[in-house]
Amino acid sequence: MKSETRDKYRDEGSADEVKNHVSPAVIKRLPRYYRYLRELLQNDILRISSGELSKLMHVTASQIRQDLNCFGGFGQQGYGYNVKYLYGKIGEILGVTQNFNAVIIGSGNLGSALASSPIFERRGVKLTALFDNSPNVIGKNIAGYIVKSMDELEEYCKTNTVNIAVLTIPKTVVREMADRLADIGIKGLWNFASTEIDLSHKGAVVQNVHMGDSLMTLCYELTK
Amino acid sequence: MKSETRDKYRDEGSADEVKNHVSPAVIKRLPRYYRYLRELLQNDILRISSGELSKLMHVTASQIRQDLNCFGGFGQQGYGYNVKYLYGKIGEILGVTQNFNAVIIGSGNLGSALASSPIFERRGVKLTALFDNSPNVIGKNIAGYIVKSMDELEEYCKTNTVNIAVLTIPKTVVREMADRLADIGIKGLWNFASTEIDLSHKGAVVQNVHMGDSLMTLCYELTK
Repeated sequence: MKSETRDKYRDEGSADEVKNHVSPAVIKRLPRYYRYLRELLQNDILRISSGELSKLMHVTASQIRQDLNCFGGFGQQGYGYNVKYLYGKIGEILGVTQNFNAVIIGSGNLGSALASSPIFERRGVKLTALFDNSPNVIGKNIAGYIVKSMDELEEYCKTNTVNIAVLTIPKTVVREMADRLADIGIKGLWNFASTEIDLSHKGAVVQNVHMGDSLMTLCYELTK
Repeated sequence: MKSETRDKYRDEGSADEVKNHVSPAVIKRLPRYYRYLRELLQNDILRISSGELSKLMHVTASQIRQDLNCFGGFGQQGYGYNVKYLYGKIGEILGVTQNFNAVIIGSGNLGSALASSPIFERRGVKLTALFDNSPNVIGKNIAGYIVKSMDELEEYCKTNTVNIAVLTIPKTVVREMADRLADIGIKGLWNFASTEIDLSHKGAVVQNVHMGDSLMTLCYELTK
């Protein structure tokens, strides 16, 4: 009976209501579900059972049920999850529908790679400008953006809504820049400078990316 | 008494012996410890208590003790961890001392960014070559490497030890390339093509990097 109750269609609440029921641990796992659900949609798969999703994602079916059942959108037992609904719901929870605007600070190779990739668009984020402080780079056309001077940063952020700044600048200058951005009022920083930045005292949130961590995990797996 | 016993200096075993005692969950967290320990060393901090490390890393002290106590290298109660010893030990477990060789497949912006960064060197990995299939890129000097043609890949891997291939090529071609690399005998793939590749059936391990996941987590935090 328990399983039947759990698998019955539930009327979903608003994103905010659902959000209150989702633990931080689950939130951390949601982007991965979001990616898999997108691939399913791209392949016109509209329903999937926890068992099938489990095989695909190499996660136990019970973990999947635990993670996803608070979102609603799943049919009666045996019908599986409604992929489109779940994709939309998770996107909503994760802020995909918020139309955030982002700028890239540092238009070197990594900044250029990000600007040229669908990474923002796919998550509902609009990249609006690229900045750099090198005279060799300012004015250059990268992925359709004319790189602006760092000197224009304050003015630009005053006249345009900027929610997220992507930091692709050297580690040595990143703290100073992060402070400057928080002082301008930018609330979200996506930091690629491979150092941990915490701006909670300035009311900004930071995601610190450490690409090297996965290289180390790979090396570990190679030694096994 | 329990805590005293736990904090007493223990003779460490070999990396292999220690490795057998470390759970996969802890292994996943080790690269982060490794980064923090390196920063401590760079600042000439040679001893640190679990309490201090806890504040620095925003992890509970009890989590830190649980994670690190199997490595040994900590002094009597109150003396804290021996930073250098622990850094070396974790590096050993993670394969930093294995002198792995890596090549980059795809010498666009992201490949160039990685080649120019200290990301490999810091983890004991030696980048030995860059490859691309575009005539505009082949022969170019990127970060001191003359980009080779993809046609030379098999020959290069036959005459040079290559442990890791870094995939910075488009998603549409990455599966085919991953198969080709596994067939050549490369055992480790570091995949940036934002799709999940599994080559366990060919005896290769893959780390799939999904940079967009942290952008989504950032968006989520911005909506809170």
